[in-house]
Amino acid sequence: MTKLEQVSSNRVSTGTLTKYAFESTSLGGLKTNVNVFVPFTNKPASPVPVLFYLAGLTCNEDTGAQKGGLFNKAGEEGLALVLPDTSPRGAGIEGEDDDWDFGTGAGFYLNATADKWKKHYNMYDLVVEEIPKVLKEADLGLDFDKVSIMGHSMGGHGALTLYLKNLDKYTSASAFAPACNPSRTPWGTKAFQNYLLTRTRSSPPSEWTPYDASHLLSSIDAPKGSLRMLVDTGSADDFLKKGQLEPDALKEAAKASGRGEDEVQIRLQDGYDHSYYFISTFSPEHIAFHAKHLKA
Amino acid sequence: MTKLEQVSSNRVSTGTLTKYAFESTSLGGLKTNVNVFVPFTNKPASPVPVLFYLAGLTCNEDTGAQKGGLFNKAGEEGLALVLPDTSPRGAGIEGEDDDWDFGTGAGFYLNATADKWKKHYNMYDLVVEEIPKVLKEADLGLDFDKVSIMGHSMGGHGALTLYLKNLDKYTSASAFAPACNPSRTPWGTKAFQNYLLTRTRSSPPSEWTPYDASHLLSSIDAPKGSLRMLVDTGSADDFLKKGQLEPDALKEAAKASGRGEDEVQIRLQDGYDHSYYFISTFSPEHIAFHAKHLKA
Repeated sequence: MTKLEQVSSNRVSTGTLTKYAFESTSLGGLKTNVNVFVPFTNKPASPVPVLFYLAGLTCNEDTGAQKGGLFNKAGEEGLALVLPDTSPRGAGIEGEDDDWDFGTGAGFYLNATADKWKKHYNMYDLVVEEIPKVLKEADLGLDFDKVSIMGHSMGGHGALTLYLKNLDKYTSASAFAPACNPSRTPWGTKAFQNYLLTRTRSSPPSEWTPYDASHLLSSIDAPKGSLRMLVDTGSADDFLKKGQLEPDALKEAAKASGRGEDEVQIRLQDGYDHSYYFISTFSPEHIAFHAKHLKA
Repeated sequence: MTKLEQVSSNRVSTGTLTKYAFESTSLGGLKTNVNVFVPFTNKPASPVPVLFYLAGLTCNEDTGAQKGGLFNKAGEEGLALVLPDTSPRGAGIEGEDDDWDFGTGAGFYLNATADKWKKHYNMYDLVVEEIPKVLKEADLGLDFDKVSIMGHSMGGHGALTLYLKNLDKYTSASAFAPACNPSRTPWGTKAFQNYLLTRTRSSPPSEWTPYDASHLLSSIDAPKGSLRMLVDTGSADDFLKKGQLEPDALKEAAKASGRGEDEVQIRLQDGYDHSYYFISTFSPEHIAFHAKHLKA
């Protein structure tokens, strides 16, 4: 059983936010932090559904907690929130701390296959497998049969791809300003070129496409009407203008796979940018979206 | 007319948050920043009421904006928010940056009288007089005949004292974990000893008591039932335990001046601490409190 160390605890909304640290096997034994909000409910014996929040580049487990405006709505809806870090910390790999958009703070929610990174950079396994296992063992009253996932930017990419690859594990997915087509856009191609061993010469390589929400959605094998996805991007987002986000590629993919707005909503929000001011405006609506499906 | 420079602008909630910078006469010509949230209203020609938010020690104009969870409720209620900095920046005074609880980031919302500080450390004048004047000149659609004030910790002290000294200017005041009796508690006495020239030997000196909410409330000359004050402190607040906050002194003062709970509400919130997790939990309720009185 993994030893869970309590780093801090704060009462917030109608519940408690606790930061835990543990030595992660996915991250090659490095210690990682995870924030867990558990609401007080009227039925203390009844386990609560879980909503993951994945943060973006340069962020950590505190960013969404401090700036996302998440807790009041989660408490009201009776949802637990789980907020992981965005990468391993202190792996000691050469070049790890050189760039803001790669290495530390930029795990891209994938499992690295390149020799240099594969021991530590496995945020996919951490989020999908290890954190649920560790928190289940800790018996915090969470219901890991009812899990949804949301995220921002790189974390929006994480939320969409983890959902689309694990429809059996996640009930719904939502994202703020996600990187929708990272196998073709700058942040993603830089990360994938380094983290993923590329054997094929196809463009994009077949090693990359399992981490690309647009690619996954265009070819997904799921009954019509069964997806639960909500994506918001601000029209004044600089990274949208710079071609990092490409929500239109996700729209095309939804169209290609015959998905209507009943299962994939992709919205442009007029005037909002990439900041947490945007996220905190719409996060209550996203949480209500997940609550509706988790409690259905 | 003071030249107002736009530093940044973000769409948030149903409005826009703009950071302005200007050279402040109160601060001896130093440039200061102020964040201003203006909601879009259904009646664009009608000026909107204004709620000041004063931040605490080590904070600045961004802290409440990023972590306070203020905007969704303010937008819903149609209130503007004005968030000043907590001190002058870069006055170049010896010792100004030595301590976290004095000097930079710790202006205590007073006008300094000691020679060393009196040119720059006049946050009282900045908040009460200069910011309203500068924003009025800029014609942002704010109604400076309807102004209320809230704050956290040192900023809670600021909100309560500015209100009690200027009942003609402010409609209501609220505070999270305010320093209620700073002329007798460590943060306050340290600040007052340095900023304020003390001529009297009384304890506390008469130069200090105009900046002490408990002192002001105990002797205030205002019609019974006319005050509008709301104060929340968390029972797990470390600074409460360390004797920095003393809400009981404010309670005693309310009792001494015959103020009932209809005009002065002082509450202890079970299990909450000094952090913005506490503030963001109750800030919508505080904003609704001010909106009720501002729109009455």
